[in-house]
Amino acid sequence: MNDPTSDLLPEGLEDRLPQSAAAAARIERAAMAVLHAHGFDRVRPPLIEFEKSMAARMDGLMTRAMFRFVDPKSLRTLALRSDMTAQVSRIAATALSQAARPLRLCYSGQVVKIAGDQLEPRRENLQIGAELIGNDSAAAAGEMVELAIAALEAAGACNISVDFTLPDLVDTLAAEEFPLDESQRDAVRRELDAKDAGGLKEAGGEAYLPLLYATGEFEMAAAKLAALDTSGVLATRIVRLREIAARVGGRARLTLDPSERHDITYQTWFAFTLFAEGVRGALGRGGTYRIGGSGEVATGFSLYPEELVEAVKAAEDLGHKVFLPLGHDRHLAALARGEGWRTVEALDEADDAAALGCTHVLRDGGVQAL
Amino acid sequence: MNDPTSDLLPEGLEDRLPQSAAAAARIERAAMAVLHAHGFDRVRPPLIEFEKSMAARMDGLMTRAMFRFVDPKSLRTLALRSDMTAQVSRIAATALSQAARPLRLCYSGQVVKIAGDQLEPRRENLQIGAELIGNDSAAAAGEMVELAIAALEAAGACNISVDFTLPDLVDTLAAEEFPLDESQRDAVRRELDAKDAGGLKEAGGEAYLPLLYATGEFEMAAAKLAALDTSGVLATRIVRLREIAARVGGRARLTLDPSERHDITYQTWFAFTLFAEGVRGALGRGGTYRIGGSGEVATGFSLYPEELVEAVKAAEDLGHKVFLPLGHDRHLAALARGEGWRTVEALDEADDAAALGCTHVLRDGGVQAL
Repeated sequence: MNDPTSDLLPEGLEDRLPQSAAAAARIERAAMAVLHAHGFDRVRPPLIEFEKSMAARMDGLMTRAMFRFVDPKSLRTLALRSDMTAQVSRIAATALSQAARPLRLCYSGQVVKIAGDQLEPRRENLQIGAELIGNDSAAAAGEMVELAIAALEAAGACNISVDFTLPDLVDTLAAEEFPLDESQRDAVRRELDAKDAGGLKEAGGEAYLPLLYATGEFEMAAAKLAALDTSGVLATRIVRLREIAARVGGRARLTLDPSERHDITYQTWFAFTLFAEGVRGALGRGGTYRIGGSGEVATGFSLYPEELVEAVKAAEDLGHKVFLPLGHDRHLAALARGEGWRTVEALDEADDAAALGCTHVLRDGGVQAL
Repeated sequence: MNDPTSDLLPEGLEDRLPQSAAAAARIERAAMAVLHAHGFDRVRPPLIEFEKSMAARMDGLMTRAMFRFVDPKSLRTLALRSDMTAQVSRIAATALSQAARPLRLCYSGQVVKIAGDQLEPRRENLQIGAELIGNDSAAAAGEMVELAIAALEAAGACNISVDFTLPDLVDTLAAEEFPLDESQRDAVRRELDAKDAGGLKEAGGEAYLPLLYATGEFEMAAAKLAALDTSGVLATRIVRLREIAARVGGRARLTLDPSERHDITYQTWFAFTLFAEGVRGALGRGGTYRIGGSGEVATGFSLYPEELVEAVKAAEDLGHKVFLPLGHDRHLAALARGEGWRTVEALDEADDAAALGCTHVLRDGGVQAL
């Protein structure tokens, strides 16, 4: 029982201690309040599901990335969720299939993946998200990008920037403007992703070279993208991107990296990634997609606020604690709580107010500094 | 992909749809706010841990009841938590071993067990709890029973009743007053639990028969228990029970069932179970215990509010939604949200305010009934 190794947690998993747990709870509460205020109704899918069901609703969701185990009840394979978007899609396509569209749903919960990586060793994450089901227009995308920014701001993120991308860009260009056969497309996508000009030429994607330079500050990059689109096959997409940018440009710094994929494999014409000052890595991502099975269009985003928690936890305010001495007046203690104080009750003469983190004490009929 | 069985959830697992999810979120928030106000700091342990570590901190916690799987990183067996108390004990005994005592921690999260039963088919539950580590006195028990009642009241439970029990009663009596050898104790405990007078006699526990009648309304049952304790071996316990009852008797109906075990196997001298009017089954339980490994004394409780969610979800208030027509004034929409309205933005001329659940619309410069 005293084996010290039994106290260690598996790699990539951790306990949140009070400062960190309070920051995570506040961030979750603040973000969910914004989604609620914008008309998104919360749903809560279970932590585990049939592996097949989890995979069916979203192309590209790797069940190999999930912990799986056999259910002794059904004798079928279950998976611990690594993403809640597919679960919300399932709810939209089944229990809420008759609800009016667009359907606005939001969610928050823990997700677990089987393996971390060097950039992101964490295996359990808090995922907070919103899905707008039944619409994937520029208006829908604008609403969702603005909502994601508002949720992150309410959670305490500052100087947010949003990177736009066009997930189906290569397919669109390859079909008309810069023909590629099927076998070349993957290589071209990969070299664009790696931003490797030499590799791109070797893969037969020389025509795609200008895409490597149509990146950066949104207006400038969008103009470059428009300039290289001589046949106009991207015209609709560029108009839509500008519509979204016009809506959210006042609230965040916008960039465009049209061929960036961000590990996103299931999105359709639009995707975006969110960053904030002082926070390592991306805080969230979203875009337009189709729900597997029903084929219904949707626009959504997920926030992963772990690094925001890391950035703010040291300064998280846990409130002031008032020590309640033995024999204190319980009515006065309740009044102090009503005013926002946290109370800590003495159980024993030996209880030490200062050691217990109290800055105040209830005495002489009121709250006083220790 | 359209296989309808892929949409079914495993037995004992369910989606919370908006009414139910909102009720669960409100209940969690309200209960956690009460624990916070009473000086309990939140911690968040991970969803999965080494199976061994999970089992080591609490006797009687059955790892057989947990989903287990091999971690490809460590090649060790992990378990999906079925209870958070052992995790909080681990935190108290490791990361917070140097924090001043009594240490007050609280937590909230999902827990999953491998099998439901007929009374309780649910396999995933929300667990909300508080642990007071370093004290298991009557004062600690009184604080924790009162706190559990306050948390349930804040969550919307009415007419709460609390059933007290003495988990080590048979051991205490068997050691002195009504001797039993080791081999008889289990049988006597079992027959007392089954309230089977005939079985109790057969098991050699005739002397324990009066315990079957020392149950019911607290004062009456405590008097009966005191009357049968001719040697006074229970005197200290009865004094303590009365001390707890004196503290919380004004807030809840109290009963005593001294030999009831409630499936609790790890508690020491005191345990309690919480019920509320109109809610099926127990809403929570708690008591005094020792942390495995460190042996430190503690007092705590866990609430399982699933049936409270069921009882209140139909009446849960999701707030009023205001439809924002195309081209609405965004500043006015933000003002409406600031006043507590939920807004639903039109994305398309075809969007139907009433079908989308809106009772109001933003027009002529303000919020108006639809």
